[in-house]
Amino acid sequence: MPFHSHVLKNGMRIIAETSPSARSTALGFFVRTGARDESPEVAGVSHFLEHMVFKGTPRRTALDVNRDFDRIGAHYNAFTSEENTVFYAAILPEYLPQAVDILTDILRPSLRDEDFDMEKNVIIEEIGMYEDQPTWSAYDHAKKAYFADHPLGNSVLGTADSIRALARDQMHAYFERRYVAANITAVAAGNLDWERLIALVEQHCGDWNSGPTGRQNIRETKGSGAFQLLTKEKVTQEHVILIAPGPAANDPLRYSADTLALALGDDSGSRLYWALVDPGLADSADCSYHEYEGTGSFYTSMSCEPSRMQENLAIVKGLLATMRREGITEEELQQAKSKILSRVVRGSERPMGRMQAIGMSWTYLNQYRSVDDELKAFEAVSLKSIREVLDRYPVDQVTTLALGPLADLKAASNGQK
Amino acid sequence: MPFHSHVLKNGMRIIAETSPSARSTALGFFVRTGARDESPEVAGVSHFLEHMVFKGTPRRTALDVNRDFDRIGAHYNAFTSEENTVFYAAILPEYLPQAVDILTDILRPSLRDEDFDMEKNVIIEEIGMYEDQPTWSAYDHAKKAYFADHPLGNSVLGTADSIRALARDQMHAYFERRYVAANITAVAAGNLDWERLIALVEQHCGDWNSGPTGRQNIRETKGSGAFQLLTKEKVTQEHVILIAPGPAANDPLRYSADTLALALGDDSGSRLYWALVDPGLADSADCSYHEYEGTGSFYTSMSCEPSRMQENLAIVKGLLATMRREGITEEELQQAKSKILSRVVRGSERPMGRMQAIGMSWTYLNQYRSVDDELKAFEAVSLKSIREVLDRYPVDQVTTLALGPLADLKAASNGQK
Repeated sequence: MPFHSHVLKNGMRIIAETSPSARSTALGFFVRTGARDESPEVAGVSHFLEHMVFKGTPRRTALDVNRDFDRIGAHYNAFTSEENTVFYAAILPEYLPQAVDILTDILRPSLRDEDFDMEKNVIIEEIGMYEDQPTWSAYDHAKKAYFADHPLGNSVLGTADSIRALARDQMHAYFERRYVAANITAVAAGNLDWERLIALVEQHCGDWNSGPTGRQNIRETKGSGAFQLLTKEKVTQEHVILIAPGPAANDPLRYSADTLALALGDDSGSRLYWALVDPGLADSADCSYHEYEGTGSFYTSMSCEPSRMQENLAIVKGLLATMRREGITEEELQQAKSKILSRVVRGSERPMGRMQAIGMSWTYLNQYRSVDDELKAFEAVSLKSIREVLDRYPVDQVTTLALGPLADLKAASNGQK
Repeated sequence: MPFHSHVLKNGMRIIAETSPSARSTALGFFVRTGARDESPEVAGVSHFLEHMVFKGTPRRTALDVNRDFDRIGAHYNAFTSEENTVFYAAILPEYLPQAVDILTDILRPSLRDEDFDMEKNVIIEEIGMYEDQPTWSAYDHAKKAYFADHPLGNSVLGTADSIRALARDQMHAYFERRYVAANITAVAAGNLDWERLIALVEQHCGDWNSGPTGRQNIRETKGSGAFQLLTKEKVTQEHVILIAPGPAANDPLRYSADTLALALGDDSGSRLYWALVDPGLADSADCSYHEYEGTGSFYTSMSCEPSRMQENLAIVKGLLATMRREGITEEELQQAKSKILSRVVRGSERPMGRMQAIGMSWTYLNQYRSVDDELKAFEAVSLKSIREVLDRYPVDQVTTLALGPLADLKAASNGQK
């Protein structure tokens, strides 16, 4: 499948992987900005701004945005993370002009005062809802505990207080600084005419302001190593998250890190699964590898009856210590690889999956990666490269956060009860 | 994409749509049995049996089933509905032999007493969990109210009592009667060698018992027309479901019915959306068309603040009456079609989507339907065929069930407050 790349005069990049046999097209705009790019006084502005993007432009009310997407049967959405804000749509190929028109139009939102004030309440409600979810809340607090003063500890949603205090002009200033042409990549995959795409994006975005891009404070961290217990009497089960350091998104070891996390904590048939979930000691136990610009980490999470937590925590820490010391077996490696290869292949079968994948590769590596590139990289993972990850990133040197009804919990020492 | 079909001597059918450019393979076994095929004393046995299928065979423990799927990185699952029990896996093409081996092996489960007793508790817990979900609970009760003594009113999960009373030998008898070769279709899509598939299925299933297939009590129903209020003080919002009659799964009007439901109640940009969700009168309001063997129905559901329910219910009934009388506009038709065409295309992009689609077409029509067949059928929907649906199936002649804190609710008359 051919790959194409082009840069407009104002610095905006357009990339696409075209596939003439596809029956649909996926189109996304990747804005390289997120919670890590926020100062404390505008905490949550990236995510709030993502909402405001759908609230209208000089040419469209919020209602028009909804209706216009609907008219072309678009399947559309957006998300905000620590590092990216992405707007996207899946469409039938004949609607490419309309999709580019709508998506580029909403990316220059009016940020009207009345919409801003109304949406503020929606966001504050959303924050309340998420805070009521123990899994999400534990994750957010654990991230903060691990990253401490590193900007990756910033909450994507912000707090009810930070959102309440946010002024429309602060959001506008953030928008002007971060939504510049050179900080946005237009990404397409599936059935589309590449020259047509360039022309359409140029027509709509050619006059967008350029400006300095990038981000500050890109640095590695190995985490604070803290141990925190948050007592929430209303929560039924006890939740714990252990975060350990891992390779950054542009590190070739990322493939080995991903494989390692799967062997340790896939939600079926992994070490954590067999030790805790299968015998019924925990409701859930899993591990995943998160990669960022400049650093990365392994998130191990587990939830169980409060009365079992002290013992289960010792089991988890024991597994992490054993894994760091002894690595994984050849059989575990092969099984984890089978799962990952299958996941990569299945994820690549839709233009939407490819659009997301090439957009992320470009964001983190400034590089195109085909499905075959990715498959080869995972196939090359070996016990030796897994060993290298474990030596450079001690998976048992964790920052721990527990959340639930427990009033007392001891930091179990590594590898023993 | 070529279609293939073959029948083994014992009556088991194998069908496949092969696509050499696909990178994965989806494989499913469709057992034509579900809640509607249950007598009251074994209510819930189909779904319980679906669970037991993963609990082991003479050759495999439950643990082996899990490990063997994991070893090939299979993405696997199963579901039970009123009419079908389906077991499936998505795999890399080279693992076809293993996938056929595991799936066919588990379809002859041991149904061991100890596993049966343990899984019984899991099912009873699952029923409790679902009963705590007002949306699901309202749906299950509404279905019962609409279908009354028609077997499609049977709950897929059964009740805690029916499951508690179920004996292992009753399940075994049901299995022997319903899981006969001629009642099962093996369905594959994606990258696979057709001759190889036949050989594999024949090798594993060639000696399976045949036996009579089919089902009893296939008849149309237009619903009881009842109005029921279930008061549940613990539930916060009030939920209502209105069920109206619709065309059966093998009726060519099904495409028009699906389009009509979308225009009435898609979760964005439909009549219900603009009347209730967009102005903030309801939390959710949608409509979907459900097709069955012999009959069909439109499910309209809405949830809102209890204090708003009486008024909202009048709005919903007004919309249904207006729609029956006046139909939809050309613009609504075009918009609904855009959405459906986009949905069909996106659903067809993965072998998993095609496997499900051709399996269902074969189950209900004994016919292969290509993506193009489906697209053409939706493109042919017209204001005239929509009119025909509305004339034959009065969308405002509903059976109504409300569930929530309200102690009192009046059946609003059609079309007025």
